[in-house]
Amino acid sequence: MMDAFRAWFSKHKEQIRAEFFQFLRFASISADPAYKTQMRQCAEWLQRYLGTFSHTEIIETPGHPLVYAEECSAGPSKPTLLIYGHYDVQPIDPVELWHSPPFEPTEREGFIYARGAVDDKGQIFYAVLAALAMKQISGKLPINLKFCIEGEEESSSMGLSRVLPKLHKKVAADYLLIPDFGQYDAATPAITLGCRGLVGLEVTLTGSSADLHSGTYGGIAYNPNRALVELLAKLWDSEGRVRVDGFYDDVEEVDAATLKNFAASNSKEQYRKEFGIAAFGGEKGRTLQEASECRPTLELNGICGGYCGAGLKTVIPAHAKAKITCRLVPNQDPAKIGRQVEAFLQKQALAGMQVKVEIYPGGAFAFRSHLRSKLAQAVASASEEVCGKACVRQLSGGSIPIIPELVKASGAEAVGMGYGLLDDAIHSPNERFDMIRFEKGFLTVARTLELL
Amino acid sequence: MMDAFRAWFSKHKEQIRAEFFQFLRFASISADPAYKTQMRQCAEWLQRYLGTFSHTEIIETPGHPLVYAEECSAGPSKPTLLIYGHYDVQPIDPVELWHSPPFEPTEREGFIYARGAVDDKGQIFYAVLAALAMKQISGKLPINLKFCIEGEEESSSMGLSRVLPKLHKKVAADYLLIPDFGQYDAATPAITLGCRGLVGLEVTLTGSSADLHSGTYGGIAYNPNRALVELLAKLWDSEGRVRVDGFYDDVEEVDAATLKNFAASNSKEQYRKEFGIAAFGGEKGRTLQEASECRPTLELNGICGGYCGAGLKTVIPAHAKAKITCRLVPNQDPAKIGRQVEAFLQKQALAGMQVKVEIYPGGAFAFRSHLRSKLAQAVASASEEVCGKACVRQLSGGSIPIIPELVKASGAEAVGMGYGLLDDAIHSPNERFDMIRFEKGFLTVARTLELL
Repeated sequence: MMDAFRAWFSKHKEQIRAEFFQFLRFASISADPAYKTQMRQCAEWLQRYLGTFSHTEIIETPGHPLVYAEECSAGPSKPTLLIYGHYDVQPIDPVELWHSPPFEPTEREGFIYARGAVDDKGQIFYAVLAALAMKQISGKLPINLKFCIEGEEESSSMGLSRVLPKLHKKVAADYLLIPDFGQYDAATPAITLGCRGLVGLEVTLTGSSADLHSGTYGGIAYNPNRALVELLAKLWDSEGRVRVDGFYDDVEEVDAATLKNFAASNSKEQYRKEFGIAAFGGEKGRTLQEASECRPTLELNGICGGYCGAGLKTVIPAHAKAKITCRLVPNQDPAKIGRQVEAFLQKQALAGMQVKVEIYPGGAFAFRSHLRSKLAQAVASASEEVCGKACVRQLSGGSIPIIPELVKASGAEAVGMGYGLLDDAIHSPNERFDMIRFEKGFLTVARTLELL
Repeated sequence: MMDAFRAWFSKHKEQIRAEFFQFLRFASISADPAYKTQMRQCAEWLQRYLGTFSHTEIIETPGHPLVYAEECSAGPSKPTLLIYGHYDVQPIDPVELWHSPPFEPTEREGFIYARGAVDDKGQIFYAVLAALAMKQISGKLPINLKFCIEGEEESSSMGLSRVLPKLHKKVAADYLLIPDFGQYDAATPAITLGCRGLVGLEVTLTGSSADLHSGTYGGIAYNPNRALVELLAKLWDSEGRVRVDGFYDDVEEVDAATLKNFAASNSKEQYRKEFGIAAFGGEKGRTLQEASECRPTLELNGICGGYCGAGLKTVIPAHAKAKITCRLVPNQDPAKIGRQVEAFLQKQALAGMQVKVEIYPGGAFAFRSHLRSKLAQAVASASEEVCGKACVRQLSGGSIPIIPELVKASGAEAVGMGYGLLDDAIHSPNERFDMIRFEKGFLTVARTLELL
């Protein structure tokens, strides 16, 4: 069938591009309420685009709407595949760095530049297109297929998370495919079989009721900036391990044999060359692969206190603040880890300092797929056929918080796939994709539908 | 003569207020180039106001102009007094918090609200007025008198500092009076016989060539925020002493008998009540008075790295930064301390992190007056007569960087005086002064001219 799909794609190439551009033109920024109308218009466009499915629906949520489509005519003897993606995109700041308008897709040197070109409009669009092509070519789908395309992945997935308990029947599936990931490198396809979980916190220290003059009060008031750096520096021991009580309690060791199933991470030399990284931060005695895939982390995403503008301001600030996220591995409960970190911060902070810790909602468990599930094997085989090269199994150090919830609600085995590359500038100005990778994604999904 | 001055002030009260308001109406913000014209207009107005002096002059500097006036007709057998002040003011942000326009002086409940009402337009204006009144009442000045009123005290005094080497003859004096300080409390006058010195630095750690995703790179890249808090936390030992090599080498111990000459600082209880300070930051074993007057400090005026806005951004920032100032005591050289702190930061920073330290120009030595200099005794006696209460001797924990330079250039013995109070909101919205304290200042300076 591969040849038939290639021919179909080739024949409809101009139309595909035109429709993809229509999809990209919606300024579907979920984080900014100013784009609410465009969000809905985008969802409605997508629903119409899925119009040949036996059932399509806009599902309202407390946030942005969800696009749902299904065609389950293959019958109960065939497996059911749920494909998850999102039509919302990241904000476009700093907009002055874009070389062409972010919502006016523009081709330059073989690339299509637009916000959402890859993440995730490009990737969910080729998946939808594969299903539509299959229906056109074969007159029907070989398996039962469902799409759940949400509008808040870039801003917490809160809407989907809230309505999910009522959607168990709709999302019930054997397999869950998530085309929101990257390939291994430009030549090598990959499937992603796990993500880390996440919990976020904010800690604020208050040392006085107002900012103080650092001349008059220097030597008298304990500076919250000092109390904060002293507190945060206690978070790691000399081996680079997080000192929070219980932090590693639920972490399972992953043996070397298991790790060998997954792609090794870059070497230190590669990290030095590509990102200028000269200092490495994981626990001592762990490989980079272990550190980024199998070990939890605690990162200071933001620290701030006092004045950091031009010149000097001789201030002892009233407050100093840090934003923290922990990446979690299987078995770690984000709520429990959040409470443990909070307890550490409260206990270790300087006596007298007022300590406020806020645990952000939306924490997520890690997820792991079975290494050789039928979906994993199908996607791997499909991508190998498409790319002519062995497919690599990956674990992601990042998090897609809704996946573990979707896995639970659907009862499905999840696999991540995708043709993103590191230099696609997702979340940055001048995001881009190309039609060659778009076609690879299209063919991989189409072939997966056949192989399942 | 006190009665004659009181009578003169009373007779001219409306005119004095009108002229003071004229002075306050100039938006003489030195830090903002947008106010350059107003700065010059203010300087020219002040020169005209000093017009009955035998010599007045606008002295150009690389920055804003200096207003100079002298009348040295008392002859070489009489002492020469140099009075230093500044006509520039702090910026007015956040302007929305002002209850009346900052450059439209407004009286409410006995207070005059305006930017510069105290700092330093109000205080330099009563000093100028005292000299003019003396000339009107007595027909001449009893001593040789010089005014040096600069336009950049709030933004580094760089202009005056640059031209000072060429002004030795002009500023040469026996005594230097600086009416830019506060009284002890609302009822008690004070003279200020010392300030701490100052040196400022900025340290930036760079861990990678661009911001990194904290999921993908968490556990791999060493987070510059972490490297920064670990570095900064090393700056103090468990006794609260700064761990920088040589930091205390040039510090002289001040014995208890000497300290008794100066006003004690507030108690911890007072600091708790007034400013909500619950944690105290000086070296262990030192009193609050020692800590704020006789010991050097190192303060983190600003720390920043990554994202501190609403919500979370899962970033490992490329850079993290801290702004540091050290307050210095007599004998400490700001350039030397700056280099010592830089050396500590360079040496103690994590290997691999790129460390950039910038020492800000404009560092200052501390200054100390002799306890019982003739000027100190004259101002103390004058203020006691005016206020009917014993004058308190103070040391300031803050810094006026130009004073040590002026002391050196003029060869004069310096004394600080003033009628500011902590709740005058200098440097903040709704700065205020009142005509009762203004008159006290006027009488104190006038009487000082007689007593010298």
